[in-house]
Amino acid sequence: MKIIATVREMQETSEQLRREGKRIGVVPTMGFLHAGHTSLIVKARELSDVVITTIFVNPTQFGPGEDFERYPRDFERDCKKAEEAGSTIIFSPDVREMYPEGFASYVEVEHGSRILEGKFRPTHFRGVTTVVLKLLNITKPHAVVFGQKDAQQAFLIQKMVSDLNVETSVVVAPIVREKDGLALSSRNVYLNGTERERATQLYRSLKFAKEKIQQGERSVDILRAEMKRMLQSAQPTQIDYIAFVRPDLFQEIEHIQPPSVLIALAVRFGGTRLIDNHLVSVSS
Amino acid sequence: MKIIATVREMQETSEQLRREGKRIGVVPTMGFLHAGHTSLIVKARELSDVVITTIFVNPTQFGPGEDFERYPRDFERDCKKAEEAGSTIIFSPDVREMYPEGFASYVEVEHGSRILEGKFRPTHFRGVTTVVLKLLNITKPHAVVFGQKDAQQAFLIQKMVSDLNVETSVVVAPIVREKDGLALSSRNVYLNGTERERATQLYRSLKFAKEKIQQGERSVDILRAEMKRMLQSAQPTQIDYIAFVRPDLFQEIEHIQPPSVLIALAVRFGGTRLIDNHLVSVSS
Repeated sequence: MKIIATVREMQETSEQLRREGKRIGVVPTMGFLHAGHTSLIVKARELSDVVITTIFVNPTQFGPGEDFERYPRDFERDCKKAEEAGSTIIFSPDVREMYPEGFASYVEVEHGSRILEGKFRPTHFRGVTTVVLKLLNITKPHAVVFGQKDAQQAFLIQKMVSDLNVETSVVVAPIVREKDGLALSSRNVYLNGTERERATQLYRSLKFAKEKIQQGERSVDILRAEMKRMLQSAQPTQIDYIAFVRPDLFQEIEHIQPPSVLIALAVRFGGTRLIDNHLVSVSS
Repeated sequence: MKIIATVREMQETSEQLRREGKRIGVVPTMGFLHAGHTSLIVKARELSDVVITTIFVNPTQFGPGEDFERYPRDFERDCKKAEEAGSTIIFSPDVREMYPEGFASYVEVEHGSRILEGKFRPTHFRGVTTVVLKLLNITKPHAVVFGQKDAQQAFLIQKMVSDLNVETSVVVAPIVREKDGLALSSRNVYLNGTERERATQLYRSLKFAKEKIQQGERSVDILRAEMKRMLQSAQPTQIDYIAFVRPDLFQEIEHIQPPSVLIALAVRFGGTRLIDNHLVSVSS
């Protein structure tokens, strides 16, 4: 396992790998790896000869009052897990290496970035797209793998890569869940026992809406109201949103239409904010 | 001379050149090439094995009411001039190739982009940095050459390339002037005979300020007032700005300080807006 901390060494390493004809896969993470992340590394390994896992808790995607400082970190364990999953290079720069004094350049996708997560976390996606573009320029991957768990992020990164002619293939891998349905997230460690149990209601409400749609329900108002009732039974601190989105354009819809709808939600339990989503095919 | 119109063919061509170990130089232009542009091509040729000249009148850097539609174009002559100067590839996509329907991703440098040109053309630099990043991703140059004539643009592109870890060398080549001092610009063709004569006052006022600084004048207020009087004698329609800038940070200053100051101005004659600048060393 090779650990690289500087932009220059990472760029030289990737350039050298490319000269040798190696295909590079990259998995950008904020560390504290779980089975969701390792599934992305396994996917990247299938698609390439060398997998670089980036570990960087990116300050520019956290808003004021969010959990940047207390975001969980465990670098030793991350290296072990990444290696076991098939990654041989870790890129883990510090904040000053990524954002030197006077840093001032940002990338924004102006469509699809101001709803859902973007509404509740106004500077979040600007931070995400900026750091991802930097990481792509630093690691030069043939393929980069993201998780469907952050569906809006995956959409915006695909859009940015396409719009800005970044020559890499963006791959989105499925959500990995606990046995009881809770989507894996580094933030799950914040949940206490009661919250952890109640949090299973997120996926339960998504599956419920899926069944209703398959049974023919087409009204977003009705679906949202029923999901809201289900979620409220779990006594969350707050439901940020329950959104129905056209996946190709990332636009909210009011009426379920073929061929598919993405149902996405964000719910808070105490200080912990959880997101989840489900892509549902819709018959005509 | 090879003329390429699609992103895909250009990316494949550049990738192939890199595989062959060729160094690529790129000169981004909006066409209607003059001796200023060809000096950039000559410079790029010195630095690389293959020079790609990009010709694209970029709509996103023109504001409403600006001269996008009437911007001068002469593709045949441009190809000839580019070839004579040492370029063997022209990349000239159409607007839809660069900005497909639904295009939504923009790059902004948030420091140094809202003064001078950015104040008078609020969306200009967002368009410039976005198209330049796209062109760099499409042409993959080892070196990219810009003119000092657009000093603020050159600063912002260097900043973007550095901030976003784009692995290319940004080279800034000196302003080329007519014998009477007028900086070459594609927009000079808009000037009528009287305006053309009066326009020489731009460079004259810059040289005057330089002399004053070399004689010890350190007050920006005094220098600006004297330059303004000189410019007004040319009866311009408007003086947009006369700015004194610290070149390393692109910040306006009120007191001339070592080691250097960039004096930049924008002046209108009728519907034609001219810019010019001069970098002056300052002794301590």
